Amino acid sequence: MTTCHPIYLDCDTGIDDALALAYLLASPLASVVGIGTVSGNVSAAVGARNTLDLLDLAGAADVPVALGAHDPLAGSFHGGAPWVHGSNGVGEVELPASGASLAAESAAEMLVRLARLYPGELRVAAIGPLTNLAQALRLEPLLPSLVESVTVMGGAALAPGNITPVAAANIWHDPEAAALVLAADWDVTLVPLDVTMASVLEETHRQSLLASSAPVPRALGETLGYYFRFYEGIYGRPCSTMHDPLAAALAVGAVKTALAPVVRAAVDTSDGPGRGQTACDMRGLYAGYPPVGGARCRVVRSLEDDFAPHLMETLLSPVVEPAEFEPAWVR
Amino acid sequence: MTTCHPIYLDCDTGIDDALALAYLLASPLASVVGIGTVSGNVSAAVGARNTLDLLDLAGAADVPVALGAHDPLAGSFHGGAPWVHGSNGVGEVELPASGASLAAESAAEMLVRLARLYPGELRVAAIGPLTNLAQALRLEPLLPSLVESVTVMGGAALAPGNITPVAAANIWHDPEAAALVLAADWDVTLVPLDVTMASVLEETHRQSLLASSAPVPRALGETLGYYFRFYEGIYGRPCSTMHDPLAAALAVGAVKTALAPVVRAAVDTSDGPGRGQTACDMRGLYAGYPPVGGARCRVVRSLEDDFAPHLMETLLSPVVEPAEFEPAWVR
Repeated sequence: MTTCHPIYLDCDTGIDDALALAYLLASPLASVVGIGTVSGNVSAAVGARNTLDLLDLAGAADVPVALGAHDPLAGSFHGGAPWVHGSNGVGEVELPASGASLAAESAAEMLVRLARLYPGELRVAAIGPLTNLAQALRLEPLLPSLVESVTVMGGAALAPGNITPVAAANIWHDPEAAALVLAADWDVTLVPLDVTMASVLEETHRQSLLASSAPVPRALGETLGYYFRFYEGIYGRPCSTMHDPLAAALAVGAVKTALAPVVRAAVDTSDGPGRGQTACDMRGLYAGYPPVGGARCRVVRSLEDDFAPHLMETLLSPVVEPAEFEPAWVR
Repeated sequence: MTTCHPIYLDCDTGIDDALALAYLLASPLASVVGIGTVSGNVSAAVGARNTLDLLDLAGAADVPVALGAHDPLAGSFHGGAPWVHGSNGVGEVELPASGASLAAESAAEMLVRLARLYPGELRVAAIGPLTNLAQALRLEPLLPSLVESVTVMGGAALAPGNITPVAAANIWHDPEAAALVLAADWDVTLVPLDVTMASVLEETHRQSLLASSAPVPRALGETLGYYFRFYEGIYGRPCSTMHDPLAAALAVGAVKTALAPVVRAAVDTSDGPGRGQTACDMRGLYAGYPPVGGARCRVVRSLEDDFAPHLMETLLSPVVEPAEFEPAWVR
């Protein structure tokens, strides 16, 4: 018996968001009960379109998708990262268009509704900027006591940033929202570049996806071609990180961390060169991170095992029909 | 034949500054031609007092010492770090009082004078806040073309800060000065916490200093008792880093670096949580730091060899009388 967790996924789909979504749909530990989109890699609207198309391709068109915030809490959407994800967010691959519609509620409203529906059980996997989560905290101040945990892909603790020397994209796109999310009184895990940049998918993995008989792995393999070309400029060879699927796997408890200290973390919302940085207080490093007062943010720095084999195994596993799926939280 | 370099030392003496000073006086690669003090670990005046006393103890009372800036470029001196260095800066050890006087010039004036005296040859080792160097840049805009190199102990590239989660003390004490120094067009090397926190002096080393028949190593061993107690809270055992002597050794070329990429570096002078951070652009990490346009700051991340044996050997070597010493730069 494994426990299956109800998951709310907040995403900006995105090539690695697509990997995370496919991973969660295939994982026996997860039941995706709702998805909200936010502007980041692409606009919230384009991300929603990609999410609907991917769900349809996966035979999971019944998973509700809510449109979330187009603009960050302060300022306006920066226009995404077409040089990383392609102009359509999925590496210029044309996915079959889903006929499904978006939910009538906003992403923040969906998160609040699901948190009330599954009190103490909902796990939030946030793999885009944190605007929707911040809005949900405003809608329902009791949200932190309603959700089981929040896992955020973002930040850079002792690793370089990716959008500035010190800031990671998901935080930099909406530092004000990230500051609210990291300050809220919930069980929050940060999955920063420290660990995601060390988790690499190689060309052999991509070829395995392309060789699959199932449509979702094949589509992922195709979109990864674009992503690999971007990361060739970073790593010097065609490959990619697994930012978002790693955060998804950590959210459902499918992978073990080797080092994940609980530290104080603050988001830089200044207009200085530190804007968007997650200033994690890692000063306990030299003594094995002894407990410190006020520390509440778990920062994943390393994993027990390489993530790629688990991701590949899950993505290439026989599809579990959503209808056959009985989550443990169904009473 | 080894080349002996004329060195201007800018310091805030300080227990590890004392180690750096003793190291430079004992090194056959260095001829200390002038010393300026600045507020940091202690006030500039207390640092000058300690420097004169140490020089006298080392039989080097002829090395000129100039008082430098008491206050940073913006704001005022924070009061030092008595919990690290003791209220007198040398771990509450009473050094024999020197009868020597301070130079009539300021530290910035001394640096400019020495740079003109040894054009293209002077090496600057800056192991305190960078106020004096910034003032010297204002006094003599051609300073960058006059000095051979500048080696700065400070910053944190991919390591935690020590005075805030992201800032190292020497930079945080005067970020505006550090910004000017890192922006100037000279050969600048940053010796950050990344490498200094990995260079540790143990209790056995301290005992060797205490067992010396020479007064300087014995005094250093005594002062280190206080420093070790502070660092016991950081490392979980009595020991200490070698921040300043490591920067001094790198300044004279006595130790080899294993990894020292040349990157873009900016100092955070905002009032946000990043204030005092050296935002080094380490994004080339994953491809072995390929050359990037505009990169001018060498950031030492690791050494070829453990620094402690070299430091100990130099500190415990027979004293070379300054008078017997003929630097290569004497024409």
